[in-house]
Amino acid sequence: MRFSQLFTKTSKNVPADETAKNAKLLIQAGFVHKEMAGVYTFLPLGLKVLNNIANIVREEIDAIGGQEVLMPALQLKAHYETTGRWSDEVVDDWFKTKLVNGTELGLGFSHEEDLTPLIKNFITSYKDLPIAVYQVQTKFRNELRSKSGLMRGREFLMKDMYSFALTQAQHDEFYLKSQAAYTNVFKRLGIGESTFMTFASGGSFSKYSHEYQTLSAAGEDTLYLSRAKGIAINKEVYTDEVLAELGIERASLEEVKGIEVGNIFSLSTKFSEPFKLTTNDEMGEPMTIIMGCYGIGISRLMGTIAELLSDDKGLIWPENIAPAKVYLARLGDSPEVVKQADELYNRLTTANISVLYDDRNARPGQKFADADLMGIPQRVVVSDKTVQTQTYELKARTSQEATNVSLEDLLKTLGD
Amino acid sequence: MRFSQLFTKTSKNVPADETAKNAKLLIQAGFVHKEMAGVYTFLPLGLKVLNNIANIVREEIDAIGGQEVLMPALQLKAHYETTGRWSDEVVDDWFKTKLVNGTELGLGFSHEEDLTPLIKNFITSYKDLPIAVYQVQTKFRNELRSKSGLMRGREFLMKDMYSFALTQAQHDEFYLKSQAAYTNVFKRLGIGESTFMTFASGGSFSKYSHEYQTLSAAGEDTLYLSRAKGIAINKEVYTDEVLAELGIERASLEEVKGIEVGNIFSLSTKFSEPFKLTTNDEMGEPMTIIMGCYGIGISRLMGTIAELLSDDKGLIWPENIAPAKVYLARLGDSPEVVKQADELYNRLTTANISVLYDDRNARPGQKFADADLMGIPQRVVVSDKTVQTQTYELKARTSQEATNVSLEDLLKTLGD
Repeated sequence: MRFSQLFTKTSKNVPADETAKNAKLLIQAGFVHKEMAGVYTFLPLGLKVLNNIANIVREEIDAIGGQEVLMPALQLKAHYETTGRWSDEVVDDWFKTKLVNGTELGLGFSHEEDLTPLIKNFITSYKDLPIAVYQVQTKFRNELRSKSGLMRGREFLMKDMYSFALTQAQHDEFYLKSQAAYTNVFKRLGIGESTFMTFASGGSFSKYSHEYQTLSAAGEDTLYLSRAKGIAINKEVYTDEVLAELGIERASLEEVKGIEVGNIFSLSTKFSEPFKLTTNDEMGEPMTIIMGCYGIGISRLMGTIAELLSDDKGLIWPENIAPAKVYLARLGDSPEVVKQADELYNRLTTANISVLYDDRNARPGQKFADADLMGIPQRVVVSDKTVQTQTYELKARTSQEATNVSLEDLLKTLGD
Repeated sequence: MRFSQLFTKTSKNVPADETAKNAKLLIQAGFVHKEMAGVYTFLPLGLKVLNNIANIVREEIDAIGGQEVLMPALQLKAHYETTGRWSDEVVDDWFKTKLVNGTELGLGFSHEEDLTPLIKNFITSYKDLPIAVYQVQTKFRNELRSKSGLMRGREFLMKDMYSFALTQAQHDEFYLKSQAAYTNVFKRLGIGESTFMTFASGGSFSKYSHEYQTLSAAGEDTLYLSRAKGIAINKEVYTDEVLAELGIERASLEEVKGIEVGNIFSLSTKFSEPFKLTTNDEMGEPMTIIMGCYGIGISRLMGTIAELLSDDKGLIWPENIAPAKVYLARLGDSPEVVKQADELYNRLTTANISVLYDDRNARPGQKFADADLMGIPQRVVVSDKTVQTQTYELKARTSQEATNVSLEDLLKTLGD
């Protein structure tokens, strides 16, 4: 895309009430717009990043057999009364609304109560199991405070998956697969080395849940990290008993802060029991179906990556989620420079290499600063100087030095 | 995808309160699930259709320069007080909600009040115009009644675009482009011949708006159609004056019912004025920016297509939005049949031809009925008989007769 046609601009200003580094950077770079605390609009470049993250998650979840659906935000009171989660005293972050006729509705903060009765329509035999159903959908949570930018939204994009199994063994098998899928996701997003599986409270039906926590001073959770074992323990279950069970010495642990980017939960029969989600097993015995739930915060991940992968100049996107792979800065507007830059833009675009082409009438310093702020992985300069020397100036966002390369070498570097 | 692994099933049952043909068919085929009147979950095959429709709309809107964003559902009261649209007496289909601290919020029914103040941040010169911004986003409208299935949702997916222009001429130019884009969209979706640009009320700021109405007995709008001119007039502006202006004889018109699948509106300065969205023109004169809005109901289109393109056996999807191009029915489970069907499935999938592979243990009649109900464009049968004759049985959803063809001819037919 051509920068001159993009309606967003970079800016030095951020809203006075915005204190989170991730949101400040994303606003300055023109990726998001703050509507209110915890509620953001995704602008064209930000939406590209968000979609790229979501698609990586989809690929890994599809690979373990997840089937994508799209459930509504509007939720029926009756379903939540069935599980005892309608009351604001039980769930303190509900958004509620009403039909014209006065019927109360909720805005979905999670979808167990929606999917469990739905799935009853489709399970007629043990042969139908296991099943895993997911969506990438907008969630609403009425957070009292929301000061962490995209990391704690009142309205946010989430991948939530729910699994249905006949037996504990079948459930455990999928649970393990989902752990592997989650590890792949965070690795592909460039935060694999800072993201740790973390033992956390399992609620009433299982001993632990597994959170995926990305280390960051901006994190809201306190963890005890064993670098040697590559796992962490959430403060909420940090007891001698748990340490003993996991075979970890207290002295070997570091206290750190983490951002919860994902979590997986064994739900046992917590939801299938009240909804009477049952089927007969091979022997004709009635079985209550065992469920699990598996969340990844898509917009929270965008905030987390902005928070982690950035420097004093701006954002640093991993190539596979960047809004463009190449920032093509055209310096000057002599006919030769315009011609060569246009040609390179067309050539890269035709080769399916995404380019943000800075064709604006702006000073070189502005263009370089914007390329860095926006965090585009590769910067290519076309100028009078490069036209004269028949080269292109190439610099990775993460390197200090630019090099002059031939067209052939440029295409080789950008094309792989 | 393999049918045996898909969690949805076809069904003869529909909810007792569902009266709309489109929803009945989509529910029976396992494409959607009804949550409540006007609120549906999109199941895996239904979500594919929905996404295919949305992507065709995106392509046509991108081609005229639309830039995609994603705005939130949660809306600030202050913005709607600025335009006088907060009151339930002015806008009668609001869903409202509240933050924990009591702050009132709305759920977006349209996004002029959200985007207009946002865009102020980015317009610093007349050179920034024209701009067109769109989203494919979930809208909430608190309809008193919602009995038309996916054609009148309380929560539904919409493409809404907003244009910003310096002058009336600039606005008109984009308005015409959008009309051409809309025509392309409906043509590509297979309802071009039944969809007519319709003159409708323009509100307080322009004489007409332009609706796109698809003819259907299930439509809620009454129109007067001139087949000769290829346009229609909405009942609300059906006056002698309008007929004279459009040069149409009353006698030449048919009274028909239509489903409003899209609309385009000149907003003039209705929103830019209260939000003080202005810029200076080339001569330094302050100009209030001229806006337009452009809607297409994505989920409504899915309902409309189901309503129109269907017969007594079920749905009939156009190939470019079908959830799969081929329904591969394997009859029997002899090793030769399984081998040949598996091989064909892999071959088509590798060639990027989407296949719904019916590998279930089900009777041929069930498989054929499901293929028809789901409306997959091409049906291929592999059976003992086809294995013996070294052929494949091929039938289009729209044809009565199956033919036996060689592998080469099969691939030729399916591959183009």
